[in-house]
Amino acid sequence: MSYVDTDAAQVVHHATYLRYFEQARVEFLRANGWDYNAWLQRDGLGLPVAENTVKYRVPARFDDQLEVHTWVALARRSALVFQYEILRDGQRLTEGTTKCACTTMQGAVRRVPVELIRVCLGDEFDPSQI
Amino acid sequence: MSYVDTDAAQVVHHATYLRYFEQARVEFLRANGWDYNAWLQRDGLGLPVAENTVKYRVPARFDDQLEVHTWVALARRSALVFQYEILRDGQRLTEGTTKCACTTMQGAVRRVPVELIRVCLGDEFDPSQI
Amino acid sequence: MSYVDTDAAQVVHHATYLRYFEQARVEFLRANGWDYNAWLQRDGLGLPVAENTVKYRVPARFDDQLEVHTWVALARRSALVFQYEILRDGQRLTEGTTKCACTTMQGAVRRVPVELIRVCLGDEFDPSQI
Amino acid sequence: MSYVDTDAAQVVHHATYLRYFEQARVEFLRANGWDYNAWLQRDGLGLPVAENTVKYRVPARFDDQLEVHTWVALARRSALVFQYEILRDGQRLTEGTTKCACTTMQGAVRRVPVELIRVCLGDEFDPSQI
Repeated sequence: MSYVDTDAAQVVHHATYLRYFEQARVEFLRANGWDYNAWLQRDGLGLPVAENTVKYRVPARFDDQLEVHTWVALARRSALVFQYEILRDGQRLTEGTTKCACTTMQGAVRRVPVELIRVCLGDEFDPSQI
Repeated sequence: MSYVDTDAAQVVHHATYLRYFEQARVEFLRANGWDYNAWLQRDGLGLPVAENTVKYRVPARFDDQLEVHTWVALARRSALVFQYEILRDGQRLTEGTTKCACTTMQGAVRRVPVELIRVCLGDEFDPSQI
Repeated sequence: MSYVDTDAAQVVHHATYLRYFEQARVEFLRANGWDYNAWLQRDGLGLPVAENTVKYRVPARFDDQLEVHTWVALARRSALVFQYEILRDGQRLTEGTTKCACTTMQGAVRRVPVELIRVCLGDEFDPSQI
Repeated sequence: MSYVDTDAAQVVHHATYLRYFEQARVEFLRANGWDYNAWLQRDGLGLPVAENTVKYRVPARFDDQLEVHTWVALARRSALVFQYEILRDGQRLTEGTTKCACTTMQGAVRRVPVELIRVCLGDEFDPSQI
């Protein structure tokens, strides 16, 4: 991470982690074959953030190499809950969750596409549970 | 708020609210007679963020006049929990909480000064409860 | 200004000044009777940034009270150049300029409305110079 | 780049480029064998930003793959001027410069270490010119 991400306490500022989480969601989806931006452009749907929680355990510092683990903890009819752990050298610094609604660009709630749930849950996907 | 606070969905970006919360804590304390920066400089103590939660109900937009209501919901031996509501024309857009630890600049946990708790709780302050 | 605006050198991060400049433009226009957002909504025109320059002379620190002086140094057919000085207790910390183009939301260049030039230049406005 | 980097005009916000430039400086130095953070920790010197200029030619959009070209255009006794081009698919979107002073953590100006100038200028380094 970068100098701009730090604050006068010489640690990564707490708001910065929401940047990392957001990037992590897009990259998690991409890594699993789902191009978020292409979907947004094509279908006019997106995953705006409805709730965030973050627990800060150990501060990160300038130029640390951070690893962001991301997965989908819960898939509902019209929402996904992403979960994260941020690690440095195997030590857990931060954890968090983001509940994303599935909506149109105008904010109308829609079903999460089954194909996206499959992408998010991988082997744990059970269509009868949705 | 400002254009830089918005994102391509044409609403205030979800991470921006942590900026508002942070500024609100400092101004809440100042309004109640506690100069956070002077305390930090004088005693070397501060209130780093240990946990954040945010619920986004209605998006804010560029140039909206937002009102941030802030109070201390809970005072513990070495932590304070701030709570917030962000309103536009009386409508609640966002709510959140921040748990702040009381620590030295090196991160060692310390008791929250009794005078600070008094400042935070106002009339609800009961020294026997700490 | 706020803690999030600082960096690990314990000064206001250099990118933060572009936030201050942006807010200063909108407030300068509002103070002179031009509601930027209303104009944008009504006419579909705006003032996207084409160039920025910033000179950092003296660093600002957490919780400093900063004063941003803003004026329009130059008005051209389809561009305005804003100029700024940021002061703390009368000392000049930072100066900068922003060249804004006047464009549609799709980025097509348009003439700056004469009324906006009048708002920007005040008594120095000379219609024959445009 | 990420959604948080965009604004309500649905393009990358102009202040975001200073983030890219900053990261590019650190990565340019690292790629040439100079660990900025290790130097800062060891010698207590750094390269704070004294001036920035940015020209915005073509806007970038969410999820664009951007390439940042970085080099040192000028090395002076106590300052380095970095230059940048940001490209998307070979098209130049943005260009900029940053003049960095070489200073102690307290802001006292120091000579740029000769070894750092060599790292920055590569084959163009001519010790007699400094």
